[in-house]
Amino acid sequence: METPRFAPLPDSLPETVPFTGPEAIERRRGGAFAARLGANENGFGPSPRAIAAMAEAAAEAWKYGDPDNHDLKFALAAHLGVTPDHVTVGEGIDALLGNLVRLMIAPGDAVVTSNGAYPTFNYHVNGFGGDLYRVPYRDDHEDPAALMAEAARVGARLVYLANPDNPMGSWVTDAEIQVALNALPPGCLLILDEAYVEFAPPEAVPRISVDDPRVIRMRTFSKAYGMAGARIGYAFGAPALIRGFDRIRNHFGVNRIAQAGALAALADSGWLAQTRANVARARNRLGAIAADNGLTALPSATNFVAIDCGHDGDFARRVLVALSDAGIFARMPGVAPMDRCIRVSCGPDDQLDLFAKALPDALRQAGQTPRR
Amino acid sequence: METPRFAPLPDSLPETVPFTGPEAIERRRGGAFAARLGANENGFGPSPRAIAAMAEAAAEAWKYGDPDNHDLKFALAAHLGVTPDHVTVGEGIDALLGNLVRLMIAPGDAVVTSNGAYPTFNYHVNGFGGDLYRVPYRDDHEDPAALMAEAARVGARLVYLANPDNPMGSWVTDAEIQVALNALPPGCLLILDEAYVEFAPPEAVPRISVDDPRVIRMRTFSKAYGMAGARIGYAFGAPALIRGFDRIRNHFGVNRIAQAGALAALADSGWLAQTRANVARARNRLGAIAADNGLTALPSATNFVAIDCGHDGDFARRVLVALSDAGIFARMPGVAPMDRCIRVSCGPDDQLDLFAKALPDALRQAGQTPRR
Repeated sequence: METPRFAPLPDSLPETVPFTGPEAIERRRGGAFAARLGANENGFGPSPRAIAAMAEAAAEAWKYGDPDNHDLKFALAAHLGVTPDHVTVGEGIDALLGNLVRLMIAPGDAVVTSNGAYPTFNYHVNGFGGDLYRVPYRDDHEDPAALMAEAARVGARLVYLANPDNPMGSWVTDAEIQVALNALPPGCLLILDEAYVEFAPPEAVPRISVDDPRVIRMRTFSKAYGMAGARIGYAFGAPALIRGFDRIRNHFGVNRIAQAGALAALADSGWLAQTRANVARARNRLGAIAADNGLTALPSATNFVAIDCGHDGDFARRVLVALSDAGIFARMPGVAPMDRCIRVSCGPDDQLDLFAKALPDALRQAGQTPRR
Repeated sequence: METPRFAPLPDSLPETVPFTGPEAIERRRGGAFAARLGANENGFGPSPRAIAAMAEAAAEAWKYGDPDNHDLKFALAAHLGVTPDHVTVGEGIDALLGNLVRLMIAPGDAVVTSNGAYPTFNYHVNGFGGDLYRVPYRDDHEDPAALMAEAARVGARLVYLANPDNPMGSWVTDAEIQVALNALPPGCLLILDEAYVEFAPPEAVPRISVDDPRVIRMRTFSKAYGMAGARIGYAFGAPALIRGFDRIRNHFGVNRIAQAGALAALADSGWLAQTRANVARARNRLGAIAADNGLTALPSATNFVAIDCGHDGDFARRVLVALSDAGIFARMPGVAPMDRCIRVSCGPDDQLDLFAKALPDALRQAGQTPRR
């Protein structure tokens, strides 16, 4: 019996995954984490109004969601000061990035990103046969000028820039992005991943015409709105590009509960302001915890903080293992020299208490013989 | 300024969508439907335990869902009597079909389906550049023998068979599928879309080894479990094929609320039994309503009924328009001769009351001059 085979492109793909989930680590270690601070989730949670809207929508879950995402799209357009034709809604930025890569990249097309930036974007590029070119970070920042130079050198069709950046929490300014945009090669599209933009200073939010065909921006309800598990985000840009998503997206893909939650969350600007204040306070506290241990917290425009552990990646990895043994879930950048840091998400004080309590021992253990 | 362009394959795709949602029709007609009976949703709703689990999970929506879908996958494996390695969970059958097509089909590969079967499958095949071959229904049934003959003729890599079938509600038997499977060309994969299987008679559920590499089966929480809006379904088959999904799926794509709801729904076999009984009663009632109007309801193994309106597609379309004007959302098959029917979903009595009340007038209007 001849077994059905994968098509050549997927057949060539590895069986790797972009991320191991915290639940898998919990199953391996045989117990739940006491502090879940590794996935840049927002432990301050969704707006109570969003929770209520989602709980109410649960009883209506027998209905498919509106495939047009009409009400949310109109609300987002008003929120952004654009028209609904400039906006598309998707199942989180992960799905939007996958669809964008599918729209733009044929096998062998060149794509540029930063070395150590969002692995899921790379996963999508590999998945559609694109050729990835990676530009080093400069001083823990993504380097827009270098990204553009590389894009020109390799004839890229896509450039990825997260601003603010994950995993470092750093940001580049409007002015830097404007300069970079002018150096974008003709026919190349700039993806601005703005997942953390609600936590960023105004200078990090570029003033770009929404009709500029060279740029698409992506935002999410996963971070500032505390709805990562609901899977809903959006992209905005020139209508001709945005309409492209309708050619390939899973039209009934956004779940109805998330639609209701996102609509309620967007309307609750008071909760967003409170979350921003909570996150700013937690960032400061993570900075203080780092300092108490003789470490440096990097400046952050996100809801997480990269803490420089002062040694190499092996040391930071040992810190993470020791933290995990103590019930603290955190992560770290994957590439040197950023991997001298651990990355800790902001969260309520009781979670940060546990981190503060566990860190000194974890650092001590990491300084001893490697254990794994 | 040179505008970024789509890759050649998506550039060739039309801006059509597989379906217009009922909400879009409601916005056009300027009011909500009084009876929502057109999308094969299950108006008897999710298990109260699933609703409670989803409402509870809403407050935890700040956490991403488990990318391994571990607990649900294990529960499904126990439910199916297979191992977790035989199961993959996805964002509804729509997403699973998209990923399967992406796994199996390179541009120009041949795919066989029935003419008038699920349009979203065709959308995915077109979206990945496959060549679709359509086999006619025979006596309102998909025709497994003809599907296999066509697959052999065109050298297909994929054959799609929905059993029970949408849009006709008909089914083929285990015996017919076994015969067909033996005629499947070497290297070709049979997709059994079993979205409605929980409503089907035992003879419609084929006995196929889960390790048979020639078949993949897909099921969902959208229909019998009443959770269409939660977007969660699963596929099962040989582990080597199932593992392929990990190469391309959106690992964090299934929302946490749906995971919790599906787990609770699967455990509530009492509610499922009650839903089956409710649906059987509603099918009978739809048959009686049809008969009261001099029409014939086709036998159905699903939660909807195709009602033969006794004329052509134009007539049935006029019936639908008149029903819509009366606040009743229904749909119809897209291809002759099945398009002599309208397709009405099962629902609670108050919904069917409205349909029963509106149908005589709708038929009368359809018999007069076409209005649109």
